[in-house]
Amino acid sequence: MKDAIRVAMLGCGTVGGEVVRLLRDQADELTARAGAPVELVGVAVRRPHKHPELGALLTTDASALVTREDVDVVVEVIGGIEPARSLLLEALKAGKSVVTANKALLAEDGATLAEAADASGADLYYEASVAGAIPLLRPLRESLAGDRITRVAGIVNGTTNFILSAMTESGASYADALDEATRLGYAEADPSADVDGYDAASKAAILATLAFHTRVTSADVHCEGIREVTAADIAAATGLGCVIKLLAICERAPATADAPESVSARVYPAMIPTTHPLAAVDGAFNAVFVEAEAAGQLMFYGQGAGGAPTASAVLGDLVAVARNRVVGGRGPRESAYASLPIRPMGTVPTRYHVSLDVADRAGVLSTIAGEFARHGVSIAAVRQSGGGTTYDGAPDPEPGAPARLVLVTHAAPEAALATCVAALTGLEAVHGVDSVLRVEDLGRKGVR
Amino acid sequence: MKDAIRVAMLGCGTVGGEVVRLLRDQADELTARAGAPVELVGVAVRRPHKHPELGALLTTDASALVTREDVDVVVEVIGGIEPARSLLLEALKAGKSVVTANKALLAEDGATLAEAADASGADLYYEASVAGAIPLLRPLRESLAGDRITRVAGIVNGTTNFILSAMTESGASYADALDEATRLGYAEADPSADVDGYDAASKAAILATLAFHTRVTSADVHCEGIREVTAADIAAATGLGCVIKLLAICERAPATADAPESVSARVYPAMIPTTHPLAAVDGAFNAVFVEAEAAGQLMFYGQGAGGAPTASAVLGDLVAVARNRVVGGRGPRESAYASLPIRPMGTVPTRYHVSLDVADRAGVLSTIAGEFARHGVSIAAVRQSGGGTTYDGAPDPEPGAPARLVLVTHAAPEAALATCVAALTGLEAVHGVDSVLRVEDLGRKGVR
Repeated sequence: MKDAIRVAMLGCGTVGGEVVRLLRDQADELTARAGAPVELVGVAVRRPHKHPELGALLTTDASALVTREDVDVVVEVIGGIEPARSLLLEALKAGKSVVTANKALLAEDGATLAEAADASGADLYYEASVAGAIPLLRPLRESLAGDRITRVAGIVNGTTNFILSAMTESGASYADALDEATRLGYAEADPSADVDGYDAASKAAILATLAFHTRVTSADVHCEGIREVTAADIAAATGLGCVIKLLAICERAPATADAPESVSARVYPAMIPTTHPLAAVDGAFNAVFVEAEAAGQLMFYGQGAGGAPTASAVLGDLVAVARNRVVGGRGPRESAYASLPIRPMGTVPTRYHVSLDVADRAGVLSTIAGEFARHGVSIAAVRQSGGGTTYDGAPDPEPGAPARLVLVTHAAPEAALATCVAALTGLEAVHGVDSVLRVEDLGRKGVR
Repeated sequence: MKDAIRVAMLGCGTVGGEVVRLLRDQADELTARAGAPVELVGVAVRRPHKHPELGALLTTDASALVTREDVDVVVEVIGGIEPARSLLLEALKAGKSVVTANKALLAEDGATLAEAADASGADLYYEASVAGAIPLLRPLRESLAGDRITRVAGIVNGTTNFILSAMTESGASYADALDEATRLGYAEADPSADVDGYDAASKAAILATLAFHTRVTSADVHCEGIREVTAADIAAATGLGCVIKLLAICERAPATADAPESVSARVYPAMIPTTHPLAAVDGAFNAVFVEAEAAGQLMFYGQGAGGAPTASAVLGDLVAVARNRVVGGRGPRESAYASLPIRPMGTVPTRYHVSLDVADRAGVLSTIAGEFARHGVSIAAVRQSGGGTTYDGAPDPEPGAPARLVLVTHAAPEAALATCVAALTGLEAVHGVDSVLRVEDLGRKGVR
């Protein structure tokens, strides 16, 4: 048997605690799979008194731990940009391999980590950073390495999916659903990273980088959260046979006469048909569709967060890194050779659902339809409710009352829709724009 | 740039043709990802005149090709046991790495191939052998290497899924649905490998081997096909809120007082609830659930067959093998260290749906229920229809006519159910056993 692979861990919260437990409970199996014992030799934490069970393994000097001569691999589960970045760069420079779950750091500055790993020939693995236990990065990076990926789209944040599922099921307001999520431990005290979409945007950046062999950072990802989603929006979606999900979408846009091939990465709440498999993904689960030219459409589904699932992904990487050490090889490197440009969000076409509060009088629909036409936004469907006007020829019960006009457009560029909506608000006949929501018609095959 | 990685291919049918096309169309991308050009240097086929476009690459001497000194990697897409086995063993002995889609060979004699690869330090990859383009083997072997997999269950044969879907949708007989599948190219002229379950059994053997680190061969897999599934069975399933799917199930059974920890691998048609995500997988698509202790439940879904999807999996492996050659490493090896025993099928518990033609007279139900009890098979639900007896108190319209008795059992061992059914056929009150079908209640979470 080879010498043990010696592991240092940074942080010991929910995920770290599970990593420690699995390393201990599955020691024999991990040894057999890695080809050598995988031994935890140190854990850096801020408050050692909270981890009495770790005894002599504990240290508060993370910097000394990551460069300790006998350490082979550093597992990082503290999260955030600093001090994680500095510590991992020190570790990589010292030739230690790194396994990390840190999506924020990878999305902001993955290039620096990848360069440091290349420089010293160390491994950098981060399966746990996206979609918890769902094997997603390895399939993108390795299984599909011989294919051309065209789209990666899915639900990658469990907190927002829990909140939107609760709103859909009970008709609750956003605030009430967030309260419930917080009470049940699905949302943190400061929920901003989740509900404002930043967590999903980090994951979209990581997915787009791997899928398109192009460095995409969180700053490149157009990001909208779910704070503005109202119970009325949910009801409107239901009326259209849709549900609202926070989607992360990474797409390859083919070259056109005006523009080169490019990639788009974006996060926003959108309506999807209830018949789409993603619509059935409830609660804290994650699911991601991948489309590739030869492979066609693939779906990956599972638990996207939580201590044990995330630890499973960390341990999978740890076994891979340990194996590489044992046989003297190295895992696949980052590859950003394609360096495709980021498509400006204004040019990305989507369908929209627009709900307007309008004056109820003759000619209003014509005026509004004209405004859409003037901005080149084509209308696919329109419905008027409330107020006095009815389309079915029934008598007008309350002439002159305000009415609601709901339009669904064909795919239109973001910028055209935005200027159109701005123009609508300036119309005397429009009392207000109640909501503007994207409608995503993600292609699907083979599932009823 | 490194020297080219030189590839020889055995066979050039549907999959091979797509491999050739992708190698040519994506040459630049593959070079960037592999770290060296990936160059096709020879293709062995039986009938060269069918492949004029390959010109000087063609040979009929496969044996000479696989040991040619300038060849680094052999891609095998001929299928079947021989000559594929001999050729791949020659290649591995000569130090060539192997990428194969040959499920039958791997399931029958994967150990010999793995030993040959170990002996020469060559790579052996076979993602394309199971579930086409769906990344499944790499996640099992690598992503979940730090976890303990408890179950792998799914739909891994597109032909039978197409036939069962057609029977469910149209009420067609098995024979008519098979004819349609043959006409549309989903079934081969000799459909035995698919409809008798052998193809799925090979895949189950490969999945169980990887999931449980235990060598499982096709001979270890209990295998029943779909030839006996009738339109009446499909209708019975519909009546129970179920559909019938051909399932491949690989399970880890914990140790008990009487038996050590073991693994079970089996293929058979079974009823599953229509609300289960696998129930919605229609036509030629594949989907596989994986359950692991830390990761929880994962699902993988996509196209399980076809030239382009299978070629995508071959190319992914080819890029991995080429990378390993470029950096001088080697991919993860086979690992069968656990060597768990195979659980005898007779002891595997399942729920059953039993449909009986019975005499319609007082006391019959009591007799039959007594027979189940005598064999230790507990009844979960019972329904009687046809004939004269009714449970709702309505008058008996046709006393003495034959009646149908449908029972659903609680989980019972295969052997107990089999002896119980044999005993039932000996009862004077039982005119016939119309069907015995398993009911699988695959656990599911997080999806409506």
